[in-house]
Amino acid sequence: MTKDSPKKKVKIHFNPDNVDIVVKPGENLLQAAIAAGVHIYASCGGVGTCGTCKVLLEKGQVETTRTDKLSDEEYEQGIRQACQSRVITDSTVYVPVESRLERAVLSREQKGISEVVATGWRFRPPLNKCYVELPPPTLEDNASDLSRLLRGLRQQCKLSNISVDFGVVMKLAKILRDGDWKATVTTLVTAVKPRAGDRRRPRVLDIEAGDTRERHYSLALDIGTTTVCGQLLDLNRGKVIAENLAYNGQIGYGQDVITRINYCQQPGGLKKLQQAVVTTINEIIGELLKQSQVEAEHIGHIMVAGNTTMTQILLGLEPKYIRLAPYIPVANYFPPVRANSLGINLQKQAYLFTFPTVASYVGGDIVAGVIGAGVHQRKKLTFFMDIGTNGEIVIGNSEWMATASCSAGPAFEGGGIKHGIVASDGAIEEFSINPTTLEPELKTIGGTKAKGICGSGLINIAAGLLEAGVIGQNGKFNRDLPTRRIRQGTDGYEYVLAWAPETQTGKDIAISEVDIDNLMRAKAAMYAGCQTLSKSVGISCSSFDQAIIAGAFGSNIDIEKAITIGLLPELPLNRFIYIGNSSLLGARLTSFSTDLLDDARRVAQMMTNFELSENADFMNNYIAASFLPHTNTKEFPKVSKRLAKLVKKT
Amino acid sequence: MTKDSPKKKVKIHFNPDNVDIVVKPGENLLQAAIAAGVHIYASCGGVGTCGTCKVLLEKGQVETTRTDKLSDEEYEQGIRQACQSRVITDSTVYVPVESRLERAVLSREQKGISEVVATGWRFRPPLNKCYVELPPPTLEDNASDLSRLLRGLRQQCKLSNISVDFGVVMKLAKILRDGDWKATVTTLVTAVKPRAGDRRRPRVLDIEAGDTRERHYSLALDIGTTTVCGQLLDLNRGKVIAENLAYNGQIGYGQDVITRINYCQQPGGLKKLQQAVVTTINEIIGELLKQSQVEAEHIGHIMVAGNTTMTQILLGLEPKYIRLAPYIPVANYFPPVRANSLGINLQKQAYLFTFPTVASYVGGDIVAGVIGAGVHQRKKLTFFMDIGTNGEIVIGNSEWMATASCSAGPAFEGGGIKHGIVASDGAIEEFSINPTTLEPELKTIGGTKAKGICGSGLINIAAGLLEAGVIGQNGKFNRDLPTRRIRQGTDGYEYVLAWAPETQTGKDIAISEVDIDNLMRAKAAMYAGCQTLSKSVGISCSSFDQAIIAGAFGSNIDIEKAITIGLLPELPLNRFIYIGNSSLLGARLTSFSTDLLDDARRVAQMMTNFELSENADFMNNYIAASFLPHTNTKEFPKVSKRLAKLVKKT
Repeated sequence: MTKDSPKKKVKIHFNPDNVDIVVKPGENLLQAAIAAGVHIYASCGGVGTCGTCKVLLEKGQVETTRTDKLSDEEYEQGIRQACQSRVITDSTVYVPVESRLERAVLSREQKGISEVVATGWRFRPPLNKCYVELPPPTLEDNASDLSRLLRGLRQQCKLSNISVDFGVVMKLAKILRDGDWKATVTTLVTAVKPRAGDRRRPRVLDIEAGDTRERHYSLALDIGTTTVCGQLLDLNRGKVIAENLAYNGQIGYGQDVITRINYCQQPGGLKKLQQAVVTTINEIIGELLKQSQVEAEHIGHIMVAGNTTMTQILLGLEPKYIRLAPYIPVANYFPPVRANSLGINLQKQAYLFTFPTVASYVGGDIVAGVIGAGVHQRKKLTFFMDIGTNGEIVIGNSEWMATASCSAGPAFEGGGIKHGIVASDGAIEEFSINPTTLEPELKTIGGTKAKGICGSGLINIAAGLLEAGVIGQNGKFNRDLPTRRIRQGTDGYEYVLAWAPETQTGKDIAISEVDIDNLMRAKAAMYAGCQTLSKSVGISCSSFDQAIIAGAFGSNIDIEKAITIGLLPELPLNRFIYIGNSSLLGARLTSFSTDLLDDARRVAQMMTNFELSENADFMNNYIAASFLPHTNTKEFPKVSKRLAKLVKKT
Repeated sequence: MTKDSPKKKVKIHFNPDNVDIVVKPGENLLQAAIAAGVHIYASCGGVGTCGTCKVLLEKGQVETTRTDKLSDEEYEQGIRQACQSRVITDSTVYVPVESRLERAVLSREQKGISEVVATGWRFRPPLNKCYVELPPPTLEDNASDLSRLLRGLRQQCKLSNISVDFGVVMKLAKILRDGDWKATVTTLVTAVKPRAGDRRRPRVLDIEAGDTRERHYSLALDIGTTTVCGQLLDLNRGKVIAENLAYNGQIGYGQDVITRINYCQQPGGLKKLQQAVVTTINEIIGELLKQSQVEAEHIGHIMVAGNTTMTQILLGLEPKYIRLAPYIPVANYFPPVRANSLGINLQKQAYLFTFPTVASYVGGDIVAGVIGAGVHQRKKLTFFMDIGTNGEIVIGNSEWMATASCSAGPAFEGGGIKHGIVASDGAIEEFSINPTTLEPELKTIGGTKAKGICGSGLINIAAGLLEAGVIGQNGKFNRDLPTRRIRQGTDGYEYVLAWAPETQTGKDIAISEVDIDNLMRAKAAMYAGCQTLSKSVGISCSSFDQAIIAGAFGSNIDIEKAITIGLLPELPLNRFIYIGNSSLLGARLTSFSTDLLDDARRVAQMMTNFELSENADFMNNYIAASFLPHTNTKEFPKVSKRLAKLVKKT
């Protein structure tokens, strides 16, 4: 008998790259990956402080030094920081897309991303391409074409209990023979780990002759009321390969969802709006294909995140009851439809998936955002806010979620503000004021002469004027101050931000009491929403472990100033995280992982919607919030203390 | 403490009527049903000898006297003869459609039906109508329309894990409000008792405002190469309410499947043939609706039985590879398609289901036939034969089935026979011959003057001539007989059946050696098929417990004469059963019961197809069978003995 000598070498298999490397036991996993040519992102250089090199240990043993970047839940799921792990036995390791994505693309939208992106999912796109080589039929083996294909999928791809689209049956005979019995099959698997009682099964959506696995793409789309953003995804590499955005072609039919819904009541109105957004989508697709040199026929599906109205109009579903009390959407979950049945220029078998919705005013965009941010994965009490004309709020964690929508009005997008403009060249974005001279210092987008005020600028100006005592907590100007910048304008009192010679318009640009009043209404609606929703679930606005600010507009606001005017709750600044277009992020990540696609449906069902529009508590909170920052100083103790000092000083 | 006194009354609940009756324990179940107004058919008057009053005991206990009309399997399944059962405890009893159908309709096609129709299935149409009354939405209960509907279906109809057609989502908002939150939902449930691992689930196919349960119809269609037969079914009552048939509009493009497949190779050919049969289907539907005063919008689905070529052409699937070796159909199972996507004039949500196929020449018509005849339900070794241009044979029982198709040629339909005509007025159907004078005695269809010879007449004539020694076992005329009826005609020797003055054509009608030769080829192909298939599974043609003769032509042949010429195997006559159009029967019964629909798929998978066209054994058997009745006297001992006596006598 001989004693077992310790094993001299261990093998690591990296997925989805399907790459092996043999190393000595004890080798650092990150180093092993680099040696194997597997690109794992480690922004801190492998010292364990950034938490971006997380991988999923599928099989085998590693020894890991725990850091605070790895939660208990993650550890239990098998997630490890590659840089902190040493390989002990033969192992199989998944490198999730978040740890491998080209950061150049991601970082554009995600400041502080490593904290808030969904983690722990496997790179398994819902749409998968399987290549099969079938034995040609003979008199002895004369199964039908479909039986032969299914047998091949069972034997070569381990797929069973498959359903098949009729469109595939239609072209099956020709494709199999054209490819000399070699074919690539696109399957949809919406549940990787079917839960008990889960009856979903793989579905064959398409078939192509020969081996086309290399060409495997999808689209992620965020359809906003104003803007449509699209990304072309490489499903083999978990990579964004092109990006484009355009105004939603429906803008000509009304600025907000209510006017769009009204337009749908005209004869042919719904059809017209549907066509308008489809035209926009087709333009974006055209641009993405041009950028990437990918062909439309290789795009397998589209994942769409949109609010409830945008989703229903895109699908041609009457949105009328969304705006009539008690505000009922047609469905929370819409079955996938063929993209080209809606007029989208893709091949016949490409499906369009929409995110499930929660309610008429909490749509698939919010579900996608929550999924993208991974709110559903953490025990941390999270405040998630998407600020816009309609502001949506989600409070919760992996156990529960409550949501509400508040109609803030268009002030944040420059609407209802005399000199308001959208965020573009010449928009006043940053503002400070000399406390002695009361002269302003401005910064515009693009550094050009001022043209107007954008939403984030408006917040900064109001906060600056408030802190300098130029306006009071009621939003009214202090008319006794020794500056010619405060004057009586056509709309009442105003503060001149830029004199005519300094502007692009050749006219003075000012902010008036009416403008400030509009901003106060908008921020009061958002804050009252947050307060009402928090109270409904028995917590206070100061108890959030993290606050995620989503949306393009949200990414540009100065958190501190937003707290000063009472738009955001007064939390320590380091609890705030910008996540940018989280809807698009969610659409992208679910295109990469069936785990997250499953989560989306679960999350939509889990969210409890609180209808604020006819809620008495909300109305009271709204009135109380119509002050800078708030009538109740306990809601904003620090800001209130600062402002109180100011009052004493003056 | 008191002793339990024996229960004084028991309650019987009858399904699907949903009727209760309270009776004394020990009451006869048939009598109880009659008292409850539930019509159970009992042709023997309730003495237990006919076996037509079978019911399914779902719950409770009855005491049953067993008769030979109830098999062990049936007994284990809970089937009882109502007339032989006494109720012991509270019970729930299903009255299957076969025990309640209007016999007037059934009996037209089914001689000896009670023996061979599928039994033991529950009356549960795959398409079901559920009525729900939903609470209107409020601010507190503001679930989406679809969630509300699904909740209603769960609570009121016990349906869960439902999928929903997008077409239903499209009209949902309007329908629910039009019907004031009362609606009728059409669901498809393809598995009543899901088996382990079965992942099918109810699917909502349609929704109508208000309560429309009363109007619930479907169509059963048998699409033959020559004829299309349709029945309109009342799914509430399990009843045929109208019936119609028409020639398949494809006839103009070729008589048999091979010429049709060839036609499909022309540009636009497939589309043309598809449209031709769809036009025929639409004509039949129009006629059925006219007869019944039912409206098209209340027809929920169509169940189609057709051979593989007819099925593929109807669905628009290239049939080319059916006729090229190794004879491959596109699929064995075709997903349901929207009837109106094929051009069929039904409402948008109506689906068309096709029977699964076994092989290129053993199609859904045969699967439907086997299901209709209940071959799959019995342990009896069964021989099932559908005689036509293509004759299909099935051998087997509930445990296994083997099948083959043999190309008999057109002789049985009057083709290739000089005076051959289809079975219609004036066709010589019966024939006998005076053994002394050798003068014939004829009977024509309709009793008119003779016009020609139909298929069944041809068999009878050949048998009569053989038994009278007018022709020999090689099919050649005995030229020495003292009758002027045997003469040299233009095609060689012939026997004059009717002289010119006795015919509609004004010309002599005769049968020639060439005609007899054609018949011999046809019958040799059928018999050789039977022999080859039997041998392949290790049994002999004389061991069948029952022989089911299907098809319109089959119903008209004289079994004894068919044995005499060697078309059918020499079994005791009482083992033969005519079943008529078993494909249409199968299509109808599966429209009534998901149990049978499930069975159809199982049976198609269970059947092993033997390809005869390039089988050496088949060719040998064919040559051996090209004799009257057969070169091997052991195959037909009784006929051979009779003919041997004849030879001695002459």
